Amino acid sequence: MALKTRLTERLGLTHPIVSAPMAHVAGGALAAAVSRAGGLGMIGGGYGEDIWLEHQFELAGKARVGCGFITWSLARRPFLLDLALDRFPVAVMLSYGDPQMFSERILSDEVTLICQVQTLEMARGAIAAGADILVAQGAEAGGHGMARATMTLVPEIADLLARSAPDTLLLAAGGIADGRGLAAALLLGADGVLMGSRFFASREALVHDNLRAAALAADGDATLRTGALDRIRGLPWPEGFTARVLRNDFIDKWHAEAAALSQPPDGAAEAFFAGTEEGDAGVAGVFVGEGTGLIRDIVPAGELVARISQQAEHLLVATAPGFVL
Amino acid sequence: MALKTRLTERLGLTHPIVSAPMAHVAGGALAAAVSRAGGLGMIGGGYGEDIWLEHQFELAGKARVGCGFITWSLARRPFLLDLALDRFPVAVMLSYGDPQMFSERILSDEVTLICQVQTLEMARGAIAAGADILVAQGAEAGGHGMARATMTLVPEIADLLARSAPDTLLLAAGGIADGRGLAAALLLGADGVLMGSRFFASREALVHDNLRAAALAADGDATLRTGALDRIRGLPWPEGFTARVLRNDFIDKWHAEAAALSQPPDGAAEAFFAGTEEGDAGVAGVFVGEGTGLIRDIVPAGELVARISQQAEHLLVATAPGFVL
Repeated sequence: MALKTRLTERLGLTHPIVSAPMAHVAGGALAAAVSRAGGLGMIGGGYGEDIWLEHQFELAGKARVGCGFITWSLARRPFLLDLALDRFPVAVMLSYGDPQMFSERILSDEVTLICQVQTLEMARGAIAAGADILVAQGAEAGGHGMARATMTLVPEIADLLARSAPDTLLLAAGGIADGRGLAAALLLGADGVLMGSRFFASREALVHDNLRAAALAADGDATLRTGALDRIRGLPWPEGFTARVLRNDFIDKWHAEAAALSQPPDGAAEAFFAGTEEGDAGVAGVFVGEGTGLIRDIVPAGELVARISQQAEHLLVATAPGFVL
Repeated sequence: MALKTRLTERLGLTHPIVSAPMAHVAGGALAAAVSRAGGLGMIGGGYGEDIWLEHQFELAGKARVGCGFITWSLARRPFLLDLALDRFPVAVMLSYGDPQMFSERILSDEVTLICQVQTLEMARGAIAAGADILVAQGAEAGGHGMARATMTLVPEIADLLARSAPDTLLLAAGGIADGRGLAAALLLGADGVLMGSRFFASREALVHDNLRAAALAADGDATLRTGALDRIRGLPWPEGFTARVLRNDFIDKWHAEAAALSQPPDGAAEAFFAGTEEGDAGVAGVFVGEGTGLIRDIVPAGELVARISQQAEHLLVATAPGFVL
């Protein structure tokens, strides 16, 4: 048996699970592991380091992977889209910015266009841009996002698609880290899920072992949404976007102080990058969401894909008539 | 057929649906309608008007209803708990404050104690207080709440209960407004749901027709969380709690300005109460959550209970093996 959905049928997957193109974290090895296990793995195009991106595509080898971009950042280095398209990705995902800038280029290559949205209004924009798949991302997600919650955003966008773009598929993102979340997302109206935090805590994620361990140890109360890390790094994120990250002393300090800054403070970004690189959990950016409280082990990503899909299938099958939940 | 869960078995319900004890909004007629339809209806004890509360119990007549209190407010007028217990409620629900203050009194009357929590830490406190049922409330909910999302809080607390209090039941609250939400909540590990917004937009809710209509018309992007309405009303809500409400000109203005206030501004509370009473949607407090975007009609509450339970059951049954979602 397997969980068949419109997503698995459309993209030829075994499991309706896509890994999030987490900047710096989702490299070719992670993406390939997810795809080889029957999901769809995505390389994180991040803030646009071309040599890094080429290398990650090489590491993915012949696995059928996709690539995701931060749209406003891609607009500053648009040649990265060509770099990705030259590698024949299964899909390109655009998040955080107007997809209209790049949608024609992607669709004309007959590459599946995935647009991540955080509001109903953005969903309308993504439909207008011709997206094949929408990702409805709730604010419980790790990394950048906005304010709506997965629980309401998914069914509301499912209704919008049913009315105005019935062939467009829908993925749920934010707070999904096990088979319960996948099963729930499918019943809310999604055709599959996009998961980040759970893959952050996998063997293949490009993060220091200490940070994987921090994600494993944390409960879901331990994260916050903040614009502070963007301010200290001088990253021009558009209004309204903040990033969810595991709290630590460094982040609590800057979360309290950064709003008052007119420009990035001396040395803070360097300390942050060094702490993240060296695995100093008291300083580092562990960009996981509330779902971090559902992570119970660190295993290879492919094992997660199979396990989560099977758990969801078991839950759905177990609710046949007469079964007491 | 019917959705049987540990909640329906324990409380003798037909459907695993509880209506939220919304302050000012959930009176005896709404609670009785929900209970008569096979759910559990809750009267909102609110900020403690004893004559109002007595009257609402009278309106509920012989229906088996419960009553909910704002814990920090009840601590200022504790005799209201006796007033409620004298009416033999099915359950008393405590939200927003330390349940330990009142749990012994409630449990010694052999009344079911329901404790609403917003974090994993509060869940531990509610277990220690001897709660029979926990409500895990996500921030997508209307009215007062905190920051965690339903999608992650429910499974994480379900795991906590499985480990440390397996006989304690769990309800999901926040963002649940139709059968999809109920079905999803059950798969996330809940034994039932607590719904507010959907019942705000029912015939029996004690709100002006204009405000019911505003909830019906709004999409889920149209709410925000704010402490402004508590500040202008001079209500001493504990740190960390804010209220989700439908945005309008009045609320946007005070949301931007209220944080800077040292004391309630002259006239603002009066304008707010009058606007709410008279159904002026540009001023009023329409305390609904993101689920307001899933509301498609205004009907009697009992009709909602039956419909939502049937929709959830249909979804769960339809996912039997071989079914393509």
